[in-house]
Amino acid sequence: MITTANVKNGVNVDQLVETISHIQEQPELAKFQFRAKNNWIDGGHCVSSIKSFYGAGAEDSSREETFTMECSHPQVLLGQDEAATPPEVVLHALGSCLTGAMVYHAAANGIDIESASSSLEGNADLHGFLGLDPEVRTGFNGITFKLKVKSDASAEQLENLAKFSPVFDMITNPTPVSIEIVKE
Amino acid sequence: MITTANVKNGVNVDQLVETISHIQEQPELAKFQFRAKNNWIDGGHCVSSIKSFYGAGAEDSSREETFTMECSHPQVLLGQDEAATPPEVVLHALGSCLTGAMVYHAAANGIDIESASSSLEGNADLHGFLGLDPEVRTGFNGITFKLKVKSDASAEQLENLAKFSPVFDMITNPTPVSIEIVKE
Repeated sequence: MITTANVKNGVNVDQLVETISHIQEQPELAKFQFRAKNNWIDGGHCVSSIKSFYGAGAEDSSREETFTMECSHPQVLLGQDEAATPPEVVLHALGSCLTGAMVYHAAANGIDIESASSSLEGNADLHGFLGLDPEVRTGFNGITFKLKVKSDASAEQLENLAKFSPVFDMITNPTPVSIEIVKE
Repeated sequence: MITTANVKNGVNVDQLVETISHIQEQPELAKFQFRAKNNWIDGGHCVSSIKSFYGAGAEDSSREETFTMECSHPQVLLGQDEAATPPEVVLHALGSCLTGAMVYHAAANGIDIESASSSLEGNADLHGFLGLDPEVRTGFNGITFKLKVKSDASAEQLENLAKFSPVFDMITNPTPVSIEIVKE
C-alpha cells in the first residue's frame, strides 16, 4: 500500500498535527529562540547573517545555509541605496508572516488557499527620527496590508487566521527590547 | 579652492543639516511612505519586492533596483528552509535600524563611530501561534540586542542615540496594522 502525505497549501498537515500532539505532551518543545548577527558597514548600511536557532528541545542542526541580508538607505535618506531600508524590511516580514500564518492555519482547518498576493504601505514622518518634534513617533504611524486571495473561505475567516502571525503580534503589541551596549 | 564634504561615520553631515533645514521650512517634506509587494509561493514561503516610495514631497525616482527578498521556514516548522523566517527578518531589520540610528545621530552630534557589531535574540513559545494557549502571545515575548561598539561616547549616550530607531519604536510600541482582504 502506498501512503501519500496529507499536504494542503504546501503544508504537511500530518506533520502539523504531530507537532501539536508532541507539544501537548511536552510543552518545553514549544520554546524557540531565533537569532541574528549584524555588522555595520558605514552610514546606514548594515549586513546581517542568520543561521542558528533553538527549537523543539534542541539546537537546530538541519539548516545548512547562512542567510545574509543587507539594509541601506536611498540617497534622499543620505545612503547609497545598496538595499531596502529597515522599515521596508519590516513590511516584507509582516506581509510574509500574515500570509504564512493564514496558509498554515487554513491547512489545519481544511481550507484551500489557491493564491495570495499582497501590498503593504507604511507611513512615517521624519520629524520623529530627526528629533524635531518629540510628539511625532520615529516609526510608522500606521501600516496597511491589502491581501488578494483565492479561497472558498470568507474574508473574515481568512483575516482571523492571518492574525495568528507572530510578526503581526510584534508590530501591533509592545514587544520589550533590552539593549546592552559594550564599549570595545 | 577645493571643498570636501563633511562626512562622519559614512554620513554626509552637510546634507543631513540641509535636510533638517528644508524640513523646518517645509514640514510636508518629512512625510514618507514605504511599500512592499508580497507573493505567496507555497506553505510558509513568500517573496517580496520593494522599490517605490514617497518622500521629500515626491515619488522617488532615484532608486534603480527592485530589492527582492524571501521568507521561509525550517523543516521543524514544516518548511523547506529556502530563506530566513519572518521573525528572524525582524531581528535583521531591528539590528540594522538601531545601529543606523546610532550612526546617523552620532554623526549629527560630532561623535565618531569606529566599528559596531551586534547580536540579537528573540524568544517565542509556539503555544501562541498554534492556538494552544490564548494567554501566550504569538510573537517574541522579548528581544535582546547586544551591541559592541568602538567610540569615545559613553554606552549610555550611544543607547540614547540608537533609540531614535524607527523599527525599535515599531517593535516596542503598538503600531496599528489595518488588514483588508479581497477575495478573487
